[in-house]
Amino acid sequence: MDTRFSSAIHTLIMIAGSDAPLTSEIIARSVGTNASYIRRLTGLLKKSGIIESHRGIGGFSLLQRPEDLTLYAIYQAISDTQQVHVFDLHRNPSDACVVGRYIQPVLAEMFRGIEEQAERELKRTTLADCIRRMQDKLGKSGCE
Amino acid sequence: MDTRFSSAIHTLIMIAGSDAPLTSEIIARSVGTNASYIRRLTGLLKKSGIIESHRGIGGFSLLQRPEDLTLYAIYQAISDTQQVHVFDLHRNPSDACVVGRYIQPVLAEMFRGIEEQAERELKRTTLADCIRRMQDKLGKSGCE
Repeated sequence: MDTRFSSAIHTLIMIAGSDAPLTSEIIARSVGTNASYIRRLTGLLKKSGIIESHRGIGGFSLLQRPEDLTLYAIYQAISDTQQVHVFDLHRNPSDACVVGRYIQPVLAEMFRGIEEQAERELKRTTLADCIRRMQDKLGKSGCE
Repeated sequence: MDTRFSSAIHTLIMIAGSDAPLTSEIIARSVGTNASYIRRLTGLLKKSGIIESHRGIGGFSLLQRPEDLTLYAIYQAISDTQQVHVFDLHRNPSDACVVGRYIQPVLAEMFRGIEEQAERELKRTTLADCIRRMQDKLGKSGCE
């Protein structure tokens, strides 16, 4: 996993909170990347039905309410795998040894349990939760 | 995270289960890697007080009972960070934008919650649990 996930959440918070149309360039400046990276992300988010883009007037809008949009849906939209991946398994254990023969299924099961916990947490958390936490920080900073 | 964690668990299951002294070469053949990689791992496990090596007769032995040795202790012994890391954060959000200013602390807090869950699970799980699961698979396979 690279920083696509956090960049996508950043992008969606901007889209959710903006009254004026947002271009890829504006989003890229805030995320700290280039516009083509943002276009790749917004392309994936469009493909998953999370946002739509407005060709004429420019900009993007959410197709789901922030309260209904889970971090899990965002993760799935922008990642190559459908499952959250936490721990890697070594690929070539030897079949000639009992430990080598069973280590992969044993660890895969144990690691999957941990990954499923992470997935449940992402399913429980919505874009609205992120926005609320951001507003809390904003309130505490005493500005804006 | 690379495959050091699963390779270290593999190594420790072998050490826990072996009556005869195990060399780095024998462990490496089972893990599917080279002996110098195993020596690097066993060096880290020694440094953390998980195993000791026997210079004269060769081989390694556990300094902790498998029931007391948690996967978290193994993870900490072989990884560069003391914390389980699941999601990356983008590094250069812009301070000029409200979202850019608060996205990192907001996501860091949310992601840390998920990572702490994973850590709790690794603290709950011991090397003995891995060995038990392996024995279960062995029993079901009807061999050995």
